[in-house]
Parts: sequence; C-alpha cells; structure tokens
Amino acid sequence: MQWAKVLGLVVGAAALLGLGIILGHFAIPKAPSTSTPQDLDLEILETVMGQLDASKIRENLRELSKEPHLASTPRDEELVQLLLQRWRDPESGLDSAVTSTYEVLLSFPSQEQPNLVEVVNSDGNILYSFQPGEENVTGEQTGPDVVQPYAAYGPPGTPQGLLVYANQGTEEDFKLLQSQGVNLTGTIALTRYGGAGRRAKAVNAAKHGVVGVLVYTDPGDINDGRSLPNETFPNSWGLPPSGVERGSFFKYFGDPLTPYLPAFHSSFRLDLNNISGTPPIPAQPIGFQDAKDLLCNLGGASAPVTWQGALGCVYKLGPGFLSDGNFPEDSQVKVSIYNHLELRNSSNVLGIIRGAVEPDRYVLYGNHRDSWIHGAVDPSSGTAVLLEISRVLGTLLKKGTWRPRRSIVFASWGAEEFGLIGSTEFTEEFFSTLQERAVAYINVDISVFANATLRAQGTPPVQSVIFSATKKIDAPGRSGLSIYDNWIQYFNRSSPVYGLIPSLGSLGAGSDYAPFIHFLGISSMDLAYTYDQSKTSARIYPTYHTAFDTFSYVDKFVDPGFSSHQAVARTAGSVLLRLSDSFFLPLNISDYSETLRSFLQMAEQGLRAQLEEHNIRLGPLVTAVEKFETAATALNQYISTLQNGNPDPLQVRAVNDQLMLLERVFLNPRAFPEERYYSHVLWAPRTGTVATFPGLANAYSKAQDTSPGSEAWAEVHRQLSIVVMAVEGAAATLRPVADL
Amino acid sequence: MQWAKVLGLVVGAAALLGLGIILGHFAIPKAPSTSTPQDLDLEILETVMGQLDASKIRENLRELSKEPHLASTPRDEELVQLLLQRWRDPESGLDSAVTSTYEVLLSFPSQEQPNLVEVVNSDGNILYSFQPGEENVTGEQTGPDVVQPYAAYGPPGTPQGLLVYANQGTEEDFKLLQSQGVNLTGTIALTRYGGAGRRAKAVNAAKHGVVGVLVYTDPGDINDGRSLPNETFPNSWGLPPSGVERGSFFKYFGDPLTPYLPAFHSSFRLDLNNISGTPPIPAQPIGFQDAKDLLCNLGGASAPVTWQGALGCVYKLGPGFLSDGNFPEDSQVKVSIYNHLELRNSSNVLGIIRGAVEPDRYVLYGNHRDSWIHGAVDPSSGTAVLLEISRVLGTLLKKGTWRPRRSIVFASWGAEEFGLIGSTEFTEEFFSTLQERAVAYINVDISVFANATLRAQGTPPVQSVIFSATKKIDAPGRSGLSIYDNWIQYFNRSSPVYGLIPSLGSLGAGSDYAPFIHFLGISSMDLAYTYDQSKTSARIYPTYHTAFDTFSYVDKFVDPGFSSHQAVARTAGSVLLRLSDSFFLPLNISDYSETLRSFLQMAEQGLRAQLEEHNIRLGPLVTAVEKFETAATALNQYISTLQNGNPDPLQVRAVNDQLMLLERVFLNPRAFPEERYYSHVLWAPRTGTVATFPGLANAYSKAQDTSPGSEAWAEVHRQLSIVVMAVEGAAATLRPVADL
Repeated sequence: MQWAKVLGLVVGAAALLGLGIILGHFAIPKAPSTSTPQDLDLEILETVMGQLDASKIRENLRELSKEPHLASTPRDEELVQLLLQRWRDPESGLDSAVTSTYEVLLSFPSQEQPNLVEVVNSDGNILYSFQPGEENVTGEQTGPDVVQPYAAYGPPGTPQGLLVYANQGTEEDFKLLQSQGVNLTGTIALTRYGGAGRRAKAVNAAKHGVVGVLVYTDPGDINDGRSLPNETFPNSWGLPPSGVERGSFFKYFGDPLTPYLPAFHSSFRLDLNNISGTPPIPAQPIGFQDAKDLLCNLGGASAPVTWQGALGCVYKLGPGFLSDGNFPEDSQVKVSIYNHLELRNSSNVLGIIRGAVEPDRYVLYGNHRDSWIHGAVDPSSGTAVLLEISRVLGTLLKKGTWRPRRSIVFASWGAEEFGLIGSTEFTEEFFSTLQERAVAYINVDISVFANATLRAQGTPPVQSVIFSATKKIDAPGRSGLSIYDNWIQYFNRSSPVYGLIPSLGSLGAGSDYAPFIHFLGISSMDLAYTYDQSKTSARIYPTYHTAFDTFSYVDKFVDPGFSSHQAVARTAGSVLLRLSDSFFLPLNISDYSETLRSFLQMAEQGLRAQLEEHNIRLGPLVTAVEKFETAATALNQYISTLQNGNPDPLQVRAVNDQLMLLERVFLNPRAFPEERYYSHVLWAPRTGTVATFPGLANAYSKAQDTSPGSEAWAEVHRQLSIVVMAVEGAAATLRPVADL
Repeated sequence: MQWAKVLGLVVGAAALLGLGIILGHFAIPKAPSTSTPQDLDLEILETVMGQLDASKIRENLRELSKEPHLASTPRDEELVQLLLQRWRDPESGLDSAVTSTYEVLLSFPSQEQPNLVEVVNSDGNILYSFQPGEENVTGEQTGPDVVQPYAAYGPPGTPQGLLVYANQGTEEDFKLLQSQGVNLTGTIALTRYGGAGRRAKAVNAAKHGVVGVLVYTDPGDINDGRSLPNETFPNSWGLPPSGVERGSFFKYFGDPLTPYLPAFHSSFRLDLNNISGTPPIPAQPIGFQDAKDLLCNLGGASAPVTWQGALGCVYKLGPGFLSDGNFPEDSQVKVSIYNHLELRNSSNVLGIIRGAVEPDRYVLYGNHRDSWIHGAVDPSSGTAVLLEISRVLGTLLKKGTWRPRRSIVFASWGAEEFGLIGSTEFTEEFFSTLQERAVAYINVDISVFANATLRAQGTPPVQSVIFSATKKIDAPGRSGLSIYDNWIQYFNRSSPVYGLIPSLGSLGAGSDYAPFIHFLGISSMDLAYTYDQSKTSARIYPTYHTAFDTFSYVDKFVDPGFSSHQAVARTAGSVLLRLSDSFFLPLNISDYSETLRSFLQMAEQGLRAQLEEHNIRLGPLVTAVEKFETAATALNQYISTLQNGNPDPLQVRAVNDQLMLLERVFLNPRAFPEERYYSHVLWAPRTGTVATFPGLANAYSKAQDTSPGSEAWAEVHRQLSIVVMAVEGAAATLRPVADL
C-alpha cells in the first residue's frame, strides 16, 4: 500500500512537472516581444489576397455539394471528417482542430409514410395527389438522401377542409379574409412565401380557426414571373415548377429542449410534450406547379390585386373550388403530415490558430455545414470559401512565415437549418470564455447569391474594417473598380458623418451570427455577394432550400468562374487578417454614435409627446447619448495620440479592450424576459413601428391604447430606463479607464 | 447664421483638440514601462505598515462618531464632505474624489407620533407604556438626531391582542406553539433576536395569524446573562437594559423600488403600493428591560428549556398574562406603529488612485458611512481605518514616492443599514465597467468587534493573499505572534491541501460585499478583528445598533489603544497593496478546487442515491470538477514557469485576466429567477440541508416529497446542469487561452 501511494505521488508529480514543461514550452515565446509591436503586415495581406484561388473554391464546392448532407446524416458526418482532415493537414492545416458534439432535437418526415397533400371529394375519394418532391431534372433530385419537402418542427396530423387562399399568411391577410366574410373555421389555408415567417403563417392561421397550412413559392416572387420548364433550371437560374422550399418552422433558435444550456447527453431537457415555439397546426410546403392546380381552381371572390401572383390565373379567396374547375366544388384538401421529432448527434468543427502575442483574444469566423439537400449555394458556397481561407492561412502558418497577433477560431456549425443549433450550443458551452475574449465574429453563410455586388450586415463597429478591406480589393468583372466602389452603387446611404457610403444592413437572426450578437454581445458581421435588386425582384436565389441547389446550378448560373466567390474570400480574409493582426483593433466604436443619435431622433419625433403625457421624459436619454458621443470622440482622439506616440503594449491592450467590450455593454439579460437569447438592447427584434430602441418601441406599441398608469405604460418607462442605463454604461466604458 | 455655424465648428474643433491634448498628457506615461515590470515593492509595503497610526485611527473615529449620522441626514451629508475633503487633500489625498447620489426609498419612524408599545386592560385603559428609547446614561442617548427604535420598512398599524412568547420566531417555533395548542390568531408575538432574520420573524408570525411582532435582545444572547445596570455599559461592554437593536426588516438588498436599475431621479420605479420584501405585519424592537416586564408576567404553559433566557424568571408561552402578575390576565398588548416610507437622496463617495501600468484594473476597498445612531463600531470603526489607509497611501502618492500598478477605488457607501443600498446602486450603475475591470473587492465594515483575533470571510481565491499578508504582521498584544499565528488558534480547519490553516468564512449578505460577489461575481472579502468565542456567547458586540454604540464605548471597552484597529488597517492595507501592485495577481484560483470537491462530496453522500432514483446522474459533475482541478493545477504550473522566466507583460496580463475573471464564470443570471441579485451558483443562499451547491440543495429539498416526474424534480436536474455548465466553463477559462 505505502509503496503504491509513494509511487502514485511520484508519478503524479512527474506528470505535473511534465505538464508544466510542455505548457512553458508552448506558452513562452522563444523571444519576448520586442519594442516594435506586431502589427498588420501589408505584404502578408497582399500574399493572402493573391493566393485565394477561385478554382480551389470551385473544387471545394464540388466536393462539399457532391451529396446531400442534411444535419446529422452520414454525409454530414463525412464532411466533419473532411474539415478535420483539412484543418489537420501538415502542409496547410491549423494549430489544432476539434469537434464538439451535441444531442439536439431535430425534426424529420417519415421514411415509411410520406407527407401527402390530396384533393378529396365528398365521398372521401382521392381526386388528385401531389408530387412528393422535385422532378428529377438533373438526376440529382431523387434518391434516399434527398429529404422530401416538409415543414421542420411542424406537428403531425391529417387535417382536411375546404381550401382558402391567404396570401402571405400575415395577421392582416387573415383579418382581410374575415372582413370579406370568408369563414376560415376548419379550412386549409394556402399561403405563399414572404411577408411573414414560416411559423408565423401557421400561428396566424390557427388563430382564425384554420386547421392546416400550405405554403408555396409564387413565380412572381422568385422567378420574376417566369414559370415554364424551359424558362427555369437547368435552362436558367429560375426555380422549376416542382421546386419546393424546405425550412424550419421553429420560433426560436438553438436546441428546442435545452435553452441556455449546452445540449450534452446529460443536460436537463424540457418536456417533449410542451416545447414552446413549434407551429400549432400541421403545415406543408409545396411547389408552384401544385399550387397552381389548387389556386387556379379556387372559387369565391377574387383576391385583392396585391395578393395576385404569376400563376397565370386570377387568384380567388375560396373557400372551396370553382363550380366549373378540375374538382367538384365541395372537394376538400387533405393534408397528411407524419413528421417526427428525434434526438440526434450534431457536431461543430473548430479549427484554431494560436495568436503569437494575444492568444487570449479570439477572432471567430464561421459558417454552417449542414444543408437541406446538396446545398451548393446554401451553405456550401460559404464553406468552400472558409476552406480556401483556412488553406491559405494554414499554409503560411505551417511554412513559419506568419502567425497572427490574436488567435483565430474557424468554425463549421452543425444543424443551422433547423435553427442555428450548432452555433447556439457553442455560445452556451463557451459563454464565459467568449464573453471575455472574443473580438468579433465573421459569418459567411451563402457566400454568393449572385455576382452583382457585395452585401454586408453588421453592427456599427465593424463598418470601418469592412470599408478598409473592400477599398483595396478589385470588384469581379468591373475592371479598375474596387469592391467598395461597386458596392456603393447598389447599396448606399447618406451618413451625417461620412456623406455617401455603402449601407450596412443590421443583423436579424437569419444565420449563425445571431447567438453571437444577440446572446453574447460580440460585434458581428455577415458577408456575401448578391444580385442587382433593380434587375430582379426575387425574394432570394430561386433554388433556395430545394433539390435544385446543386453544383451545376452554381457553376452554370450563380457564379461561372467563381470570381464572386473569390471576391468574398478576399473580403472576408482581409477583414479577418485586419482584426487578428492589427496592433490597434480596427473597430470604430464612434460609429455607434450615429445609430444612437438616429434612434434618439426617432424617439423624439415619434414618442416624445405621447411619453410626456404619461410623465415619461426622454431627457435622461438625450444626456446619455451626448455622453456617449463625447466619450467616443475623446477615445478616438486618445487612440490617435497613442498611434503617433510609442505606446506601452498594455496601454493599447486597455484601449482594445474598450473597443472589444463596448458591444457587451449593450446586453441586458433582464431586458426582454419573454424573448429567448435576445438581450442586446439595440438589436433585439422590433415589432413596434417607431424605428427606435426596440424595447422602447415594442413597449410603446403595446401601451398605446392602454389607460394611464397601466402596467404597459410602466413597462415603457422600464424599457426607457434600461436603454438609458445601457447607453450610460457604454459611455462609462469608453471614458478614460481610471475615471468612473 | 453662417458665421455662427463656422464659429461653432471652430470652437468644437478646438475643444476636441484640447481634450485630446489633455487626454494624451495624462494617459501617456512620460516613459513607457521598461523591461523590468512594476511589481510589489516590499519596502513600500513596510513603509505603509509602519505609517498606519493607531492614534490617527482613534482621532478619525472620534470625529466620525461625534454625532448620529443616519443615512441621508444632515450629519451624513457633512461626513460626505469630510471624506471628499480628506480625499482631495493636496498633501494626503487621492487622484480624484467624487460623489454619486441616488434617490432611494428609506423608512423612518414618525417625528410627531412616536411608535408605542402598551399594555391595555379590557376597558382599553393603558396600564403600562414602554420607554420610547434608550436611557440617557452618557448624555448621548437623547436628542433630535437619535432615531427612536423602530423596524425599518415595517408597515404602520395599531394591532392589539393577547401576548404570546415565540422564542426566535422561526417557522419551527410557531409550529411548536401550535402543537402546544396555543391559539395564535390575533395575538402579538414577543420574539428574541437570533435564529431567524428580522423580517423572517414577522413573516413566520403572520403565517400563523399573529397580528404584531415584538423583538428584543435577551441578556443570555448578548451579555452572557448579565443584565443589571452596574454590569453593563458604561460600567462594562454589556448592553444596558434599555438598549434596543434597530435594523432593517427588508427582505432584499438595494433600493426597494429600482431593482437592477440605478436609482436615479428619472429611473423607473416599482409601484409603492406593491413593493415586495417588506414585513407583512407591524413590528417593533424593544429592550430587555421592557421585555422582562412582559415575559415575566406572561401566563400559559412553560416554554421549552431551549426557549428560556436570562431575564430571571421562567418564560411562559401565553397567551395572556399570569393571574397573579402585574397585569390583569386578559390585558392585551397594543403596538402602535407610525413608520413611513420616503424617497431620500443618499450619496456614495468614491476616491480613486490611477494605476501606473494597468489603470483599467481596479482593486476596490469600501465600507458604508451611515449608522443608526453614533455608530462608533458600526460602521465608523471601519471608516476610521479606511481614512487612515487612504491617508498613508495618499501621502506616498502626493510625494511622488509611489503609484500603484493597478487603479485603487476607495468607496464610502450610503444607506447600508437600510439594505446595502449605496453599494448595490453603484454595482448597477457601473455594472459593465466593474464586470470587465474589477480585480477584487475588500470590505471592512465593523473593523473591530473585539480584540482577540482576526476574522475573515471571502471566496477561495482571496485566501492566499490574506494568509501572505497576515503572516507578516504582528498580532496586537501577542508579542512575537503574527496575526496569522494568532488567528489560527481561534478559527481553523484541516485542509486536504494545506493541513491546519485559519478558516475563512463564506460571504452571506451581511454587508456591502454582497452585490459585488453575488451580483457581479467579483472576488470579495470582509475583514475584522473579533472576540474569543470561548469566552463569550454574545451574538454580536452588545451595543450593536443601539444608542450606546459610541466613541467612549470603543475607547474604553472595545479596543483601548486602538491596536486592533491598527492590526485590521495593516491587514487590509497589505492585502490592498498586494492586489494592486503585484505583477502576478495574488489570487490562488486552485483554492476553488477544495470548495468544488467538498460540494461534490456532499452531493455524492447526501444526494446521489435519491437523484439516481429519478435518473439524475452526478457523473457529469464529477467530470467537470476533475477538469477544473486539472486546469487549475496546470495554470499554477504555467504561472510558476512564467515567474521563473522573463515573461511578456501581455502574457502576464492574460494570466491575470484568467485569475480575475474566474469568479465571473460562476455567475448565471438565470439560475435563481426568484432571488433578487443572487446569481453566483456557488454562494447563493442555501436553504436545503445538504451542504452542497445551493441551487441543487434547495431544489432537492423542494423536490424530496414530490412524485417522480414532478416539476420540482425537473428543477433539480436543471440546477445540476447549471452547476455542471458553470464548472465546465470555469475549467475552460483556466485552460491555456488558445484552447477551447
């Protein structure tokens, strides 16, 4: 016994010593940083820009989109291995690559019982049955791995009823139907994509007694009206008549059963029988070919002009069919849904380059890996770019030519299509580490919708770095024009500070940046190349979430030559390098002044009078915004003073922490108790009509019609105080660090 | 107009330029830090220890306790000015001193209608009326500024009923009374201090139909039984018969009307008519002289032995009086309470020394300023020490001999006696700045209860720095013995890591450290000198919260010569210097391993079997704790490797951030939704009996008697997952910073 103990101690001590030696070896640079601090190296930047190779992106895309890779399927797992192998490659890999796997709740159609949409007559005989999926026009639309169209998280059920047409399925649409005397009770509502979110259509429908919802893509909304086979893929980029947009009908993001907890096998899970956020009634997406058979045979009054589409007939409201149509008047539509929920393992892949000087500062770059089917555009066009950027940087790293000042974390997220699940679980698992250390998050999901112009979304601090990067990169197919110069022609705004500049969109919850900005308060951006909105009214690229989103589709119609992919790779790569290598973080926090000022002005124009009637004053908010503006200007002054001097690395670190952490200050986990994850007081969803601070706008729109002293008016005041506290707190973090 | 504009621009530009120059001037050190980093200077430390002067502390105390200084009264404001003047003194002041003022809800007795406790007979005639306050034994117990005894935040009302004796007013006490057949409905309950919190006595009483509560201090609990005038102050440190402990009966801490928001004039406030956390029935504290007249005349069965006290008679239960006592049997007790709530301005005073190298790292040191009356012990003994430490450091600063590596923030909090209000509002106003930058919080409230030994409370990371400091300081009156050597004789435990060491108490919510540790997750400590528990059973120092807590009381009985005050000043001063000046932060995070391990063991012994019956497994918690231990050990190894090398300042900064931020990782704002401010998953209040993680212990004690699958058992699993996530997150932040 004694011997064993002694031996144990010796071994333990040896292990610790070894560990210490290893740590020491890796953690202490051979030569401590010298007087000239590591900063962005423009030659390296040029090298990287030059080495980002369009043909390699094309090869990546071919491989990534070769097979359908729905989340948690064998092919999805194969791609996990592909990413690991690339990021562990001895010539072009990163310092390390790992997977993290979560057990998450996904939703699938039944293999045995396909979902059905049928027209049945009064005797219950089936008159017409809809095609179960896309027509096999390129040989890639059928097969065991092509998931049939379904509404993910839509409940099973077999509702049957007369058909009505409900336009986009918004609250207003259903109200209009009722005002027209259409009896909605027990009906099946046919809606078109757009206007309201997928689940919202079902929620609004259920409120009015509708028992089942169909949703289709109108050629007027996606194909600029074109609907004939010869006008669509494979003959053009248009959506074929049989194309069906799949999608998640879940309200929130993240694993539905483990909100605020990483979805480990052992984690606490909500009761499956009362998950919140799923649609209340069965739903099914269909193609416009099937929709046409229904819509063009529908009876009842004509739908309003704005409800009409491009199916080549006058859309009517129903209920029920035309007396002289293809179906007997009293025929009903039967929707048979056999979706089921299932706990599945889904993995993220993380690849890390250790920072040379500030390894404890992370620049994150990510995209999801999972698709609905082949997902050539969504998401593989982004993953193809991600892999090319990591290859080029990995090669410089392995050659020993370069190591970033800060750490770089590449991520391939799982199960995004079901609701940003992989990225959300990641932010839950590493909440504290990221909150303390993450400088920014770069998201490139669909990298190329089309090849006309850059489109960028992000929070104000990232505007400056995107501008600097894009001014130095040539726009594809526009010789002599920079991406910036091209961009400003398509999306621009007049800034009170800068004059005419490209306009950055704000971040919703459309991709994996959502948990980073809304839950963690990390400055985030989403980058892509897209189309000329003056040339097409398409809601999104036509084959979105269909079996036609394939490699040949991208290669022939979206980006022949892949020069737009290359442009996005250069833009994202340059932004990534600038954030990871610059001595001073290239985040211009004073660009938040513009946002705050405009939110304030909207509040003053749209709310001041009404608030004052309830003794709620905007004065403190005015003061707070002024304090922010002063502190931001002074900080920028101080930064230039430092830049012109010979600053101590710790002084610059302190300033960089102010820049990095500003976004965090706008978080308040108690601001929106009813919203899951949303806690950023500037970017939470705004349902109120006044374009000001969302909490204030929303509380006001709820209080508007209530009596003075109501709880709703108290909430308006509470929301105002929350905003004042956030802006005051933001100003405080920007002031000289030894002031309170 | 144009001219005005141009002029405006010019002036604006000039102002900014000026601001820039000023910032540049102050922010850029004349000479950037050289190769040898600033570290703790033992000579400076010795100088400070030597200059901390007992007689100056005595003079501070005389001045501070000269007049009563209840929160928000004119004398409280005078002391605000005194602190400002000291901290702005050109010879011994700090870099800057400011006040921050909040509009907070306080509670006071009526000036016009004093609260009354009377015995009335069946005809309603007053037989006996109680003395309104303390006897004027030293000439300091009366006067307009001596607030009469009252239960702060207790509601007004004039309940009347038969008297019962309810011991300490715990739930068990009232259950026992009922089991004895005592009809509590409509009674007035006499309780003694101790056992349950002030408000808890009233809550428990109201549950059983009691309409009013009296609370007194039994000489057995405070004077070791002595109760005669000649045995008590001014003849000894004992509590005189007329002494009454005042106190707050509010449940939460912070301003009652603005939870989670700084209490600015314009801030949103809860509706006065439904504040939560105040006592449900009128309450009044009384002295033991009055209590004796009641208790020794009470009828009914004898109270249990454990309920007996030192009033020199057998305590009975009531209801009603003895047939042969001073009052007719059916006499009732009438309690007339005229307390009112009032919004008052209360100020904090903040004094700042800017750090030379890491000004964006704060070491905070604070105490409250407000007292109930003269408050010589509580809190002025702490403020006297605070002022002496700031004088000594300020003098070195103004002489140019010393400037700390990190910033030091001294704080004098307002309105602590009403519920830690000033400190809580401060943490709300500066939440983000403190979350990002605060290294630790040192609290010295009552600095000397008595002069036997040091008593320290804190979270594990501060143990090491307190030990290092106290080993180097002589214990007062124990020649040759260090404070550490003396301390270990009074409070000790056997640590699996260190063997026999002084035992640190854990932090509740007894003073201003509460918002720092529970709401902000800042490593905190509370330091004081106290008595020998083997020599007295006093609950606390006898004149606590009475009009007898005066300068002469301290000078004659608590600490003649002020050597214990000096010892606390040296201990707190040394800890402060070590935290603000050490190159490597002296926080030993691996001391958290011991806590986690013991919480885990208690869970395994006390819960494992029961949890497994409900399919809740401790395995993931075991793994998480092991990961933490490994990461903590490895980090300490890495730190020693760095210490033996020539580390880059940024490497040390990264390590220090890991040490500083560990405490934050244990916060989860969603862990305890029903608790206000508490979010630290290790130190939240534990009501459950198993000495393990509080959320787990409490959820288990609620679930115990519920059926499998109950919501209560789900909450047990949720709490376990929250703990696992916190410990996993803690391990992650301690791992090498470029690992995820």
